[in-house]
Amino acid sequence: MSESFPPALEKLIHEFSRLPTVGRKSAQRLALFLLKNPVQQANSLAGAINELHERVTFCQQCFYLAEGKLCGICQDLSRDEETICVVEEPTDVAVMERSGSFRGLYHVLMGRISPLQGVMPEDLKIAQLLKRLDAPGAKVREVVLAMNPDVDGDATALYLSRLLNDRGVKVTRVGFGLPMGGSLEFADELTIQKALESRRDF
Amino acid sequence: MSESFPPALEKLIHEFSRLPTVGRKSAQRLALFLLKNPVQQANSLAGAINELHERVTFCQQCFYLAEGKLCGICQDLSRDEETICVVEEPTDVAVMERSGSFRGLYHVLMGRISPLQGVMPEDLKIAQLLKRLDAPGAKVREVVLAMNPDVDGDATALYLSRLLNDRGVKVTRVGFGLPMGGSLEFADELTIQKALESRRDF
Repeated sequence: MSESFPPALEKLIHEFSRLPTVGRKSAQRLALFLLKNPVQQANSLAGAINELHERVTFCQQCFYLAEGKLCGICQDLSRDEETICVVEEPTDVAVMERSGSFRGLYHVLMGRISPLQGVMPEDLKIAQLLKRLDAPGAKVREVVLAMNPDVDGDATALYLSRLLNDRGVKVTRVGFGLPMGGSLEFADELTIQKALESRRDF
Repeated sequence: MSESFPPALEKLIHEFSRLPTVGRKSAQRLALFLLKNPVQQANSLAGAINELHERVTFCQQCFYLAEGKLCGICQDLSRDEETICVVEEPTDVAVMERSGSFRGLYHVLMGRISPLQGVMPEDLKIAQLLKRLDAPGAKVREVVLAMNPDVDGDATALYLSRLLNDRGVKVTRVGFGLPMGGSLEFADELTIQKALESRRDF
């Protein structure tokens, strides 16, 4: 007797809990929040979700977010076509762009190699990266690997570097060390080790 | 240039971040998850959100979740009409029902008195509770207060108990003490104090 919620509410709780980092309790809180608030808020959330796939897609060249076939960066003729920065996720492109310090093009892998999570090289946009390098008229001279500095990121970078070296393209990886504005006191051992390894004459 | 996301994605991130406990970063993760997954998942989430307000509403008597005017509990003639358990949120009713140890009716306040958060008695379903008690033919003899045992819950219980005592109805509050299956070692000081206060002959 009324031990669970009405079916329409249960359905929404189920849908919310399919999202990453949303458990049953959070999903319940989100659904009840929408129910308690005016219907307009629920409608505008549903509308935004419905429009997402209609309006936004992934760039056919670099797999960053785009509203047409190509993203704004790939369409921008002022970018340096000789350098491609390879990142794991579309959000990483946004982070790099915010820094304003890279003027080349990007390639989003859409993940990282992670055998434990069942993600193999063929699940990523690696073939598409090689195709870009091999395309007639391709001018790429350097590929900058910007995977995250962790086990899966390192493995992905290593895998890519071997593939790319065979093609005679210069392969670099972004530097590791102390984050700017951070303090030595709060840096972990591995970061300090990396910072020491990448020390330079001053 | 492309420093933020396409407008339709930004809109969804904005809508997600209006939900409780969802910050900008989480909203971004949720939106990109939907974008990466097949459109069917986004559609079924949007559909569930749209159907929520159409299908689910609050019981006109007790403010628990209902699919019609009255919830299943209020419609159930076998429930004890002489006892009303007052709780803060609809989810609390589900928790009480799951225990199977209460056979009376409920009244959901839809919150708790919390001056710091701007929630005053008139923002809650208190007038509706009094109306239920005063209604011709009302048989309520006992009101069980099941507010949460914290500052706001205590204040709300105290406020209600004063109002209800004036009406000659018996007012009780659910017991506090050690949770079953818990251990003394991990109980906090306040719980131990409450457990001692409510000790009984054994």
